Amino acid sequence: MIEKLDEVFEECPFPNALEAMGERWSFMILRGAISGLKHFEEFQSNLGIARNILANRLTRLVEKGILLREPMSCDRRKVEYRMTQKAKELAPMMVALRQWGEKWECCAHSKPQLCDTRDGKPIKPVKIFAHDGRELAMEDLVWVLPNGSRVPEDADKTLAA
Amino acid sequence: MIEKLDEVFEECPFPNALEAMGERWSFMILRGAISGLKHFEEFQSNLGIARNILANRLTRLVEKGILLREPMSCDRRKVEYRMTQKAKELAPMMVALRQWGEKWECCAHSKPQLCDTRDGKPIKPVKIFAHDGRELAMEDLVWVLPNGSRVPEDADKTLAA
Repeated sequence: MIEKLDEVFEECPFPNALEAMGERWSFMILRGAISGLKHFEEFQSNLGIARNILANRLTRLVEKGILLREPMSCDRRKVEYRMTQKAKELAPMMVALRQWGEKWECCAHSKPQLCDTRDGKPIKPVKIFAHDGRELAMEDLVWVLPNGSRVPEDADKTLAA
Repeated sequence: MIEKLDEVFEECPFPNALEAMGERWSFMILRGAISGLKHFEEFQSNLGIARNILANRLTRLVEKGILLREPMSCDRRKVEYRMTQKAKELAPMMVALRQWGEKWECCAHSKPQLCDTRDGKPIKPVKIFAHDGRELAMEDLVWVLPNGSRVPEDADKTLAA
């Protein structure tokens, strides 16, 4: 199994995803952007992040194509940061992590609720579904290599054990 | 809006979730555990992580209730790390981040595919759904405070702009 893992890990986009997003402040900045923050000073005061770290992370998020740095249309001496499509497609990951934190890291259900703008009703928990719509748990997942073999190899037996 | 954000951020489980998981190696260790790694030496050789960092992160993941450190039943001098239910419920977040990396950070579709153990077919992309099953994008999300107000305030107008 361990040798086959090399094959899984070698082709895995996960390290690249983490290279772009795998840092606490990058997540916090993105959460701020989702909540409507656009300017350096807004991020700084809302997140309580040191200015040099914020500058560094914003530059990195721009380089990675996650934020766009643009002069404001009303005053071109001022700059704002906007989310790209690449950033917006992080929503399922961000929401899933928030919901996990809500369940496992907070004592009470957090007061502000993440809702649908259309009707203001809370969204569903983010889950994994099979091609036919069945809900899947971690135990139900397996990597399938191009030759058809599975990692972990015992996934069709007792992964859940 | 910015003052209301304080209310959102104050109650947000996101920083706590990141406190537990917001570090590159913690994600990589969890990915390894999902793939069947159980022993210190397996994590070390598969992830190519320095031994002191690995020891530190494993200890932290055990403290956070994400991994269980247990003597092996066959040889109680040996130790293995197993995922808790809390770890397993990170699956939607991990899969969402992987799928995002697959789309945005890798040139080609990665060769090993994440599949359903039951039929070996690829899983669906992880998405956000409204209470009635409509698929939602980041633009469709808004925080609703206990008093019914929304953050961002203009979410019912043109958040997508």
